[in-house]
Amino acid sequence: MSDYIRDGAEIYQRSFATIRAEADLSALPADVARVTVRMIHACGMVDLPRDVAFSPGVVSRARQALRDGAPILCDAEMVAAGVTRARLPRDNEVICTLRDPRVPGLAAGLGTTRSAAALDLWGDRLGGAVIAIGNAPTALFRLLELVAAGAPRPAAVLGIPVGFIGAAESKVALAGSGLDHLVVHGRRGGSAMAAAAVNAIASDKE
Amino acid sequence: MSDYIRDGAEIYQRSFATIRAEADLSALPADVARVTVRMIHACGMVDLPRDVAFSPGVVSRARQALRDGAPILCDAEMVAAGVTRARLPRDNEVICTLRDPRVPGLAAGLGTTRSAAALDLWGDRLGGAVIAIGNAPTALFRLLELVAAGAPRPAAVLGIPVGFIGAAESKVALAGSGLDHLVVHGRRGGSAMAAAAVNAIASDKE
Repeated sequence: MSDYIRDGAEIYQRSFATIRAEADLSALPADVARVTVRMIHACGMVDLPRDVAFSPGVVSRARQALRDGAPILCDAEMVAAGVTRARLPRDNEVICTLRDPRVPGLAAGLGTTRSAAALDLWGDRLGGAVIAIGNAPTALFRLLELVAAGAPRPAAVLGIPVGFIGAAESKVALAGSGLDHLVVHGRRGGSAMAAAAVNAIASDKE
Repeated sequence: MSDYIRDGAEIYQRSFATIRAEADLSALPADVARVTVRMIHACGMVDLPRDVAFSPGVVSRARQALRDGAPILCDAEMVAAGVTRARLPRDNEVICTLRDPRVPGLAAGLGTTRSAAALDLWGDRLGGAVIAIGNAPTALFRLLELVAAGAPRPAAVLGIPVGFIGAAESKVALAGSGLDHLVVHGRRGGSAMAAAAVNAIASDKE
């Protein structure tokens, strides 16, 4: 037990080297591969690349948005908690509205989940934002409804909800929506992966 | 897109039914199976049970500790953010010391990661606590060192760090430590799974 590696930088370096040795990243452009390496680091699974899909240029556009000061809008507090503030280029706002006291009433009125209703409080901040959905498929569906109804368009949507009911379908819908996106297709996903994607996009630092 | 399920309770119910239909939970006692179902819900992978290991009675002991008012000590802010406060039986404290300003200095002094050094600030709160490690293998190794050196023993350790360097080894070490534990062996794990385990233990509510 006493001989485990204690140096944080060495742990990161060895982790990323292991991932790059084991994962097949050959189908991905370099910037998406970098994001995928960090998502693999967050979940421990090197077979993740087979489920990663994206629109061309999404990583550079999301990064530019952050450099321009765009907020990061998250569906879950865990996603927001996982964003490393020191990596953000403009001390960007990281926003999750799920615990806003208006959300339960909104959800009841809309007949939907609190996760979905919380998006209605994003308002004009949607325009040009980087969206990180790491938990609720209903939140991703709601985002697509809002945009279809004329809400301001985000710069990029990281669509990485997890689960068994609606998760896979919501990611297919995002990929077909015309919005700039990066998704992990299927049931896998989650707040750690979504936060890892934000952290990879936010900075070149390993 | 417009016909997705919007009812939160129905989504939970259908999700858990899908998991119970697909996952092989036959090797697990009922209370560990229930925790495992919620961990599967958090990661989207029904093959998780093969990696779940535990000491006999860990779930009931952890639950009793929470009913007695024990704190929940977390290695990462994401784990703390994922604990559903409404499920806690005694409004238990949920503690993560990683952002304490003393941590960088402690880490430098100990020659270890900030995640590991943060545990040195748990102090006497360790005694009888429920520990949720969802991120850093070094934090789990450090916990074992502290207990071996005579620190107060926690009631239960949910050892679910993720990753490529030390994660699997730290969980093997925990399983052999004599501490009451629940682990997900191998590289998989993470803050969402760790928080899900806490949430399952905290309450019988689905």
